[in-house]
Amino acid sequence: MHLHTYFQSSASYRVRIALNLKGLAVTQSFHDLTKAEQLDANYARVNPQKMVPSLVLDSGDVLTQSLAIIEYLDETYSGAPLLPKDALARAHARALSMLIAGDISAINNLKIRLYMKSDFGANDAGVLRWIQHWTTDGFTALEALLARSAHTGNFCIGDAPSMADCCLIPQLFNARRFHVDLTNFPNIRRIVKNCEAHPAFIAAHPSNQPDAPKA
Amino acid sequence: MHLHTYFQSSASYRVRIALNLKGLAVTQSFHDLTKAEQLDANYARVNPQKMVPSLVLDSGDVLTQSLAIIEYLDETYSGAPLLPKDALARAHARALSMLIAGDISAINNLKIRLYMKSDFGANDAGVLRWIQHWTTDGFTALEALLARSAHTGNFCIGDAPSMADCCLIPQLFNARRFHVDLTNFPNIRRIVKNCEAHPAFIAAHPSNQPDAPKA
Repeated sequence: MHLHTYFQSSASYRVRIALNLKGLAVTQSFHDLTKAEQLDANYARVNPQKMVPSLVLDSGDVLTQSLAIIEYLDETYSGAPLLPKDALARAHARALSMLIAGDISAINNLKIRLYMKSDFGANDAGVLRWIQHWTTDGFTALEALLARSAHTGNFCIGDAPSMADCCLIPQLFNARRFHVDLTNFPNIRRIVKNCEAHPAFIAAHPSNQPDAPKA
Repeated sequence: MHLHTYFQSSASYRVRIALNLKGLAVTQSFHDLTKAEQLDANYARVNPQKMVPSLVLDSGDVLTQSLAIIEYLDETYSGAPLLPKDALARAHARALSMLIAGDISAINNLKIRLYMKSDFGANDAGVLRWIQHWTTDGFTALEALLARSAHTGNFCIGDAPSMADCCLIPQLFNARRFHVDLTNFPNIRRIVKNCEAHPAFIAAHPSNQPDAPKA
């Protein structure tokens, strides 16, 4: 399989964690979002949404949208399950994932921030306030939901990493990058600490990718 | 089961279609988003995200996030499948759903529009331009993806409605409401026409809900 990716893309980071949890190796192409390389016509033919990640299967079929890719990997490959077996727990794992991917990440995407500047004349401070507002809004709900589901476990759902943790850790990376105050989120901080000690999460970290700037 | 809903919420509309496709009846509570009723403290205890829909199971467990609810219904109830059986087709159905729910709907949510006005001083024309921009951006990618997957079928994936159609029709309702030009989206228009003739979609339409204003 071949992954189109960028080291600092949180959606790519989610898929990298999932691939590592499954023990799957892929070849990679890198698209620097800060240079708008994902808008290139060749890549638009691969993924008409012109976003990363895309996963090209050995058949040539292209999968898009990080959570759809993760569900596909879970349905197709054995190894560590990325969703719990129980239907109710699966629903909770998906809800946490979609809260993060849809109601935090999608709203704070680079293309949104660029449009806010070009169309609304937003400055850097306004964009930073936007990111902090929607991250705090989403994390406040997430913390309350985790208090229901995670207070007895080491990860978002119970004692094994799931798709929800694949979403949480990249969002936490962004939250730190944009100086979001995490004081009021003890469950999030506890789970993040457990994930950050896990080899699959460490290997997926942006700073450990081939396209990351050399330290 | 009990559904917390609002007639004009596109996420609620998605779940109503799915419930109808499955032939499931629910009791309902209505939360008028234009009066911020979803922010009420009693409802925040049901759904800490203070968004609709939420589905309360007979066990008392609460499901949130429309796509997680739809996946739960599909895993738990027989009747018309809401996702195809083939793993690749499932991945495509999920990707189309997430493109619509995450990269169009979440960005255009009422709470985003209110924040743009309060924090960025956006006026009605600016908010309308925002909605039209992100809907057109998402539909352009969706049209290209549908041209790959749907050109031989009546619905987003093949000849039966799926979760992707549950997402497309509410987004089309919003696109019309906000005067988005649909000229360049022939696959979207063709699929919408088929969905709009289907009883499950008709019964779920906002104008057919108990909390809709009387004509």
